[in-house]
Amino acid sequence: MSEYMEKLHRNERISALQRILCDSPGKVFTLGMFADMLGSAKSSISEDIDIIRGALEKQGLGTVETITGASGGVRYLPMYSGEETLKLAKRLCLELGKKERILPGGYLYMLDMIYNPDIVSDIAKVFAGRFYKEDIDYVITVETKGIPLAFMTARYMSVPLIIVRHYNEATDGASVNINYISGSSKKIQTMVLPLRSLKRNSRLLFIDDFMKGGGTAKGILELSREFECQVAGIGIMIQTAEPLKKLVGSWFSLLTLHNVDEDNGITGIEPSNCLSISGV
Amino acid sequence: MSEYMEKLHRNERISALQRILCDSPGKVFTLGMFADMLGSAKSSISEDIDIIRGALEKQGLGTVETITGASGGVRYLPMYSGEETLKLAKRLCLELGKKERILPGGYLYMLDMIYNPDIVSDIAKVFAGRFYKEDIDYVITVETKGIPLAFMTARYMSVPLIIVRHYNEATDGASVNINYISGSSKKIQTMVLPLRSLKRNSRLLFIDDFMKGGGTAKGILELSREFECQVAGIGIMIQTAEPLKKLVGSWFSLLTLHNVDEDNGITGIEPSNCLSISGV
Repeated sequence: MSEYMEKLHRNERISALQRILCDSPGKVFTLGMFADMLGSAKSSISEDIDIIRGALEKQGLGTVETITGASGGVRYLPMYSGEETLKLAKRLCLELGKKERILPGGYLYMLDMIYNPDIVSDIAKVFAGRFYKEDIDYVITVETKGIPLAFMTARYMSVPLIIVRHYNEATDGASVNINYISGSSKKIQTMVLPLRSLKRNSRLLFIDDFMKGGGTAKGILELSREFECQVAGIGIMIQTAEPLKKLVGSWFSLLTLHNVDEDNGITGIEPSNCLSISGV
Repeated sequence: MSEYMEKLHRNERISALQRILCDSPGKVFTLGMFADMLGSAKSSISEDIDIIRGALEKQGLGTVETITGASGGVRYLPMYSGEETLKLAKRLCLELGKKERILPGGYLYMLDMIYNPDIVSDIAKVFAGRFYKEDIDYVITVETKGIPLAFMTARYMSVPLIIVRHYNEATDGASVNINYISGSSKKIQTMVLPLRSLKRNSRLLFIDDFMKGGGTAKGILELSREFECQVAGIGIMIQTAEPLKKLVGSWFSLLTLHNVDEDNGITGIEPSNCLSISGV
């Protein structure tokens, strides 16, 4: 009863456990930790967890996974089912396809979506669910637009976020800089990451809002090598259909943008192939 | 029973409700919405909410607020008590005071903290709790380091995030640019915000990781005026003790940095005055 003032009843305990699990998704808790926090027997906690797991699974919104062994415990995995993922993707397409989103030059305005906490959380849940099995140590992204998505994915996976920047900042110590060529614009850009950011031999998940040529993703692969780390997954919110061949070999995307017809106000966007085929 | 497949028992319902509330803190739900989602009577839901409120309050970790009137309902406010806030501030000082964080030039390395989902969530809860009553429409920040904090605060308040950038990006449409002078370095910098980002007459909460002279905050005030919006609050993770007089009039900060003694490896940092006096 270290943390809590009064003893909780079963209903309250379930409420408290669900809150703790929700607040730190992906994080492993031992039954003993819960027992201490709530001042209850481990056997009661174990029953509570079963009830929570049952409720989550009935709702198709994830599960509470039991990890056996010395570092064992339970963790909340807020995974979307294939059906829920496809529903989300279709809902996003409907919103992104709105005529008023088309900007001069055939760009799509979507800042309101990629900075919206509800939408970001939904997409991040899909990314986290997709890559939970990959033993990810860090989520990595490049400033700026992908940061909310990457941060929320990191939160759902209970791992730190790493933000690669385009410019050096004196206040963060020595850094590794690499130059890379943007896949679509062919411009030379710089990536900067402070030396202290990453432990060697880590497994990284690269998250971004948009991928066209794949130049940024390729830059991240190169930068990771300088830190002796490995990119174990790439998760993208929207990829373009063209060019078909990207500068990286494999990635997961939620949506595919085919074209923006500025004259007629029509945007061709749909759930990515992987969603309709495998249902994730 | 639109969303859920099977009927849930009370314990499962409490688990489901707590999860929904946790997933969208600050968001108003009507009992009718919950009744539809869970296929239960409003009277049962109302009792469930009472149990959840009781559990949260016993833990000193927030409450479920009832809002009366036509647009009424309930919302989860994950507020830290004054005691919990001070405990968090002290824990952060202990971590930030570690000798190995001091970089050449007397800077403090803290990227690992401001990008860490657990730490960011804790601090964001303090900001959200502090500004819930201010009827905030948007959380606003300037790229890059404050984005995770600002995003998570926006999530806890259930409002959109706005990110001000330093450079124009063609893909986001017409924008408003202003120049401002950094309070500490006296350098001229640019702030860019797409015209579509903000509705006129909105109330903004500016969130940032660090404030020295207050030049960035003042820039945000000026930019807000161009959008006919009002900055209704400023929340800062760390402010410096010097200069005492900042370029803005009032703000809330969690920690105050007095000095970094590079030679002796000592960092003077402590909870801000407002915390120890008022307990927030």
